[in-house]
Amino acid sequence: MRCTILSLVSLFCGLILAQDDGNTPETEKTSETQSCFPDTCNLLKEFGSLREKLGIMETRLKDSENQILELKKKETTKIAFSAAIGGNGQQIGPFNTDTTLIYKTVITNIGNAYNEHTGIFAAPVTGLYYFTFYYHAGGSHPVSLVLIKNSQSVVTAYDHQTLNDGADNGGNAVFMQLQQGDQVFIRLGANTNVWGNNAITTFSGFLVNQD
Amino acid sequence: MRCTILSLVSLFCGLILAQDDGNTPETEKTSETQSCFPDTCNLLKEFGSLREKLGIMETRLKDSENQILELKKKETTKIAFSAAIGGNGQQIGPFNTDTTLIYKTVITNIGNAYNEHTGIFAAPVTGLYYFTFYYHAGGSHPVSLVLIKNSQSVVTAYDHQTLNDGADNGGNAVFMQLQQGDQVFIRLGANTNVWGNNAITTFSGFLVNQD
Amino acid sequence: MRCTILSLVSLFCGLILAQDDGNTPETEKTSETQSCFPDTCNLLKEFGSLREKLGIMETRLKDSENQILELKKKETTKIAFSAAIGGNGQQIGPFNTDTTLIYKTVITNIGNAYNEHTGIFAAPVTGLYYFTFYYHAGGSHPVSLVLIKNSQSVVTAYDHQTLNDGADNGGNAVFMQLQQGDQVFIRLGANTNVWGNNAITTFSGFLVNQD
Repeated sequence: MRCTILSLVSLFCGLILAQDDGNTPETEKTSETQSCFPDTCNLLKEFGSLREKLGIMETRLKDSENQILELKKKETTKIAFSAAIGGNGQQIGPFNTDTTLIYKTVITNIGNAYNEHTGIFAAPVTGLYYFTFYYHAGGSHPVSLVLIKNSQSVVTAYDHQTLNDGADNGGNAVFMQLQQGDQVFIRLGANTNVWGNNAITTFSGFLVNQD
Repeated sequence: MRCTILSLVSLFCGLILAQDDGNTPETEKTSETQSCFPDTCNLLKEFGSLREKLGIMETRLKDSENQILELKKKETTKIAFSAAIGGNGQQIGPFNTDTTLIYKTVITNIGNAYNEHTGIFAAPVTGLYYFTFYYHAGGSHPVSLVLIKNSQSVVTAYDHQTLNDGADNGGNAVFMQLQQGDQVFIRLGANTNVWGNNAITTFSGFLVNQD
Repeated sequence: MRCTILSLVSLFCGLILAQDDGNTPETEKTSETQSCFPDTCNLLKEFGSLREKLGIMETRLKDSENQILELKKKETTKIAFSAAIGGNGQQIGPFNTDTTLIYKTVITNIGNAYNEHTGIFAAPVTGLYYFTFYYHAGGSHPVSLVLIKNSQSVVTAYDHQTLNDGADNGGNAVFMQLQQGDQVFIRLGANTNVWGNNAITTFSGFLVNQD
C-alpha cells in the first residue's frame, strides 16, 4: 500500500507544481514535502509548459496572420489607368487660358482613380506612383504640357510652332510620392495644342508601392 | 485511506469531464456525482481545451502557410522584356502592307514571354501589364506605329514625312489588363518606316500585378 | 480496494506510454503488463502526441514567420527616383567629349540610390529595374543620349541638327537586371546638346522586383 500512497502524493505534488509560477528553484521542488515520482512530476510540469508554449504560439500565429493580411491588402491594391484624349482625330486647343486636358477615352482604369469627366487622377491611397504622358501635335501652334500635382508643376513637354515640320511628338514621365487624395493631371498651356484621337495623345499612371 | 479513494474518484471524474463538450454549466459540473478536487478537475478540463485549441491553431497555421505560398508565387512571377529592332543602323520599311515589327536584339527577357523571332509578347499569366515603345525614323517617309492587343489597336505613334527635318522621334505607353495567352506587338503601318539598330527603336513591357 | 490498485496501475502504464516513441505497435500496448483503463491510457498517449504536434507546429510557425519577414523585406525595399537637369532654362552642351549628364533637380529619390551630384544611379539591391529618360533640345545642334550600364551602352535617343525646326524631343526606356552596385547613368554625346530646366529633360528609374 506504500506504493499507492506514494503515487497519490506524487499526483498532488504534481498538481501543485503545475500551478506554480515556474520560478521556484529546482532544489525547493525536490524538498521533502514535494518529493514525488519523477515521471508524474515531469508529466505535470510539462503540461504546464505545454499550456504556456501554446499560448505564446497562439500570439505569434495571430501576429503572422495580421502581417499576411497587411501583405495581401497591399498586394491587392491595384491602381492603374491609361486614357487617350478621344475623338476621331481633331486638334485640341489652342485655348486662351491654361486648360486641364480631359482624356475621355479610357483604355484602362483599374481602381477607378482616374476620372474621365474631369481629367483628374486622385490618389486612393498614399504611396509611390508613376505617371507618363505622350502627345502628338500639329506644328502650326506650339505644344506645352505640364504634369501637375495639386497646384505644383512637376514635369513638362514643350515644342515650338514649326511651319516646316508637319507634326511634333514628345512626352515625359515621373515617379512621385503621393498622399491619399492628391490630384494629378495634365495642363495644356494657353495658346498651344495637341492632336486628339483614341490612341495617340495619352496619359497613364499606376501605383508602384503602397505605403 | 479516505484520501486515496477521494483522489481516485477525482481522477475519474476528471476523465469524464475531459470527454464532455465543454458546454456543461459549471453548476452541474460541481454536482454530487462529479464532485472532485478542483486541481485535478481543472487539469483534465484544461487538457481537453488545450487539445481543442491546438487543433484550431493547426487549421489556422495551415491557412497561413497557404496564403504565404500564394503571396510568394505572385512575388516570384517576374515578366519583363526590352528589345531593340537590331541591325547596324538601317531603315526598316517602307513595306507595302502593315508589318509586325520584330525587335531582334533582346536586351532583357525575364520569363521569356517576348519572342524575338516573331516580335510577339504572349502573356504567360493573367494580370496587369505595362508596355512602352520608342522610335527613331528618317523624315523621308512617315512613321506609323500601333501597339496591338491580339487584333485590336490600343495606342499609336505617328509622324508625317518631313523633308525639312532630318529625323522623327516619338513613342507611347499603356497599362493593359491581359488574359493569359493574349498577344501584344507593334505594327508598322504600310508605307512608313523606322530606324533600326541595337538601341534606339525599342519595345518594352512588364507584368505589374498578377491576378 | 481492487479499484484503487487498478487505477494506479493504469496511471503508471500511462506514464510509460507517454515516454515511448509512439512507434510501439498497438497490439503490444494492450499486452498484459500494460493493460490499463482506456481513458487514462488514451489521455496520456494523447498528451505525448499533443506535445509532439506542438513541436512540429512550432517549427512550421517559425518557418512561416521567416517567409513573412522575407516577403516584407522585399515589399519594403522601395527604390525610385526622378530628376531633371535643373537650371532656369539653358542649353547643356555641346561639349567636345562625351559627358555624364547630372540631373541636379531631384523630384523624387526614395532610397537615395540616385546621386544628384554625379548623375549616377547605383543599384542598392540586385533585381529588375526600369529606367526612362526624356529630352528637349534646341535644333541648332544634334542630340545624342545613351543610357549606360556600368560601361555598356543600353538604349539611346538621337536627333540631327535641324535648322528648320525649333526643337527636338525624344526619349527611351528599358528594363534591366542589375547586380547590387551596378551603375546606370545618361551620357550626352560629344558635340550634342539638351535643354535644361527643372522639368523637361528628365531621368527616372525604379526597382521593379528585388531578387
